[in-house]
Amino acid sequence: MYKSIDPSEYHVLHPRPVYLVVSRSSSGLLNVMSASWVTPVSDEPFLIALSIWKGSLTYQYIRETGEFTINIPSDKHVDLVYRAGSVSGREVDKIAQLGLKTVKSSVIETPGLEDMLGFLECKVVKEVEVGESSLFIAEVKAIHVMGEVYTKYGWDLYKAKILLHHCGRGFTTPSRLLLAQR
Amino acid sequence: MYKSIDPSEYHVLHPRPVYLVVSRSSSGLLNVMSASWVTPVSDEPFLIALSIWKGSLTYQYIRETGEFTINIPSDKHVDLVYRAGSVSGREVDKIAQLGLKTVKSSVIETPGLEDMLGFLECKVVKEVEVGESSLFIAEVKAIHVMGEVYTKYGWDLYKAKILLHHCGRGFTTPSRLLLAQR
Repeated sequence: MYKSIDPSEYHVLHPRPVYLVVSRSSSGLLNVMSASWVTPVSDEPFLIALSIWKGSLTYQYIRETGEFTINIPSDKHVDLVYRAGSVSGREVDKIAQLGLKTVKSSVIETPGLEDMLGFLECKVVKEVEVGESSLFIAEVKAIHVMGEVYTKYGWDLYKAKILLHHCGRGFTTPSRLLLAQR
Repeated sequence: MYKSIDPSEYHVLHPRPVYLVVSRSSSGLLNVMSASWVTPVSDEPFLIALSIWKGSLTYQYIRETGEFTINIPSDKHVDLVYRAGSVSGREVDKIAQLGLKTVKSSVIETPGLEDMLGFLECKVVKEVEVGESSLFIAEVKAIHVMGEVYTKYGWDLYKAKILLHHCGRGFTTPSRLLLAQR
């Protein structure tokens, strides 16, 4: 038997993968924030959608340069991801404070982060207003992964402990692989 | 050290939660398909984005009525979810063939499915073209969950085995809860 809950209870769609979004201002300043409201939306070309609150520094930076990287953390980054999501880049240089090192992108100017499972270079192609946030539709221009944990079937779930955000300080990772019957 | 891979390799953003989307034609026919390209995009109001291939029956039905339900399966539904994603509703009545039973919605006319972890009633507010797919932005009008597995911090991960899609026939579920340090 189902029970009805508050229709704004968005945690029903969690846990879901969480990422570190790196953005860059037109003057070259960098910021990082965590975000899990991200999804692929098209495969050819590979487009993703990223929802960003309009009051955030990340929103301002992405508007300025039309670029960002999606960096894929693993379970060892759980504290870092939580902190990147709970402090504003307007108050501190989050990349320095969190001890993050950047790595050059191959197509865009905005860098990725070192020591992640991988990262995606993204260029905005469209922006859609959604309430107090904006949905950036972006084309993925390049993808870089830790080769030893990525297979032709995607991440090796026994080695790549993808981080999923649940609620507040709560995170999780995928467990064993389940194979559907044909 | 990162290795560059094909920039259309969208599986880097998987595993991610997978859902059963129920849609309804203007004449009252129902269809179901699985979809994991879904994300919350705004919290007040709670809006979600759902990417649907324009050639699909689900696309046609959602265009006709502007409604759908997002049903949340668990690990026991893995075969069903795979089948719902690999057959077209143009060939068979998938709801009947998969042995699914519907349950009335409270706000919209399109029903949910019985025996899921929960379901969301959604009304389209905007449609955005993205390549060969369309992104439906929809407002969540009501949410129903299995009360005993949903807490004020979201799903009880030890009881609600949320299904995540990895690649092809590969699925997984979240493992233990990880708590970030403040």
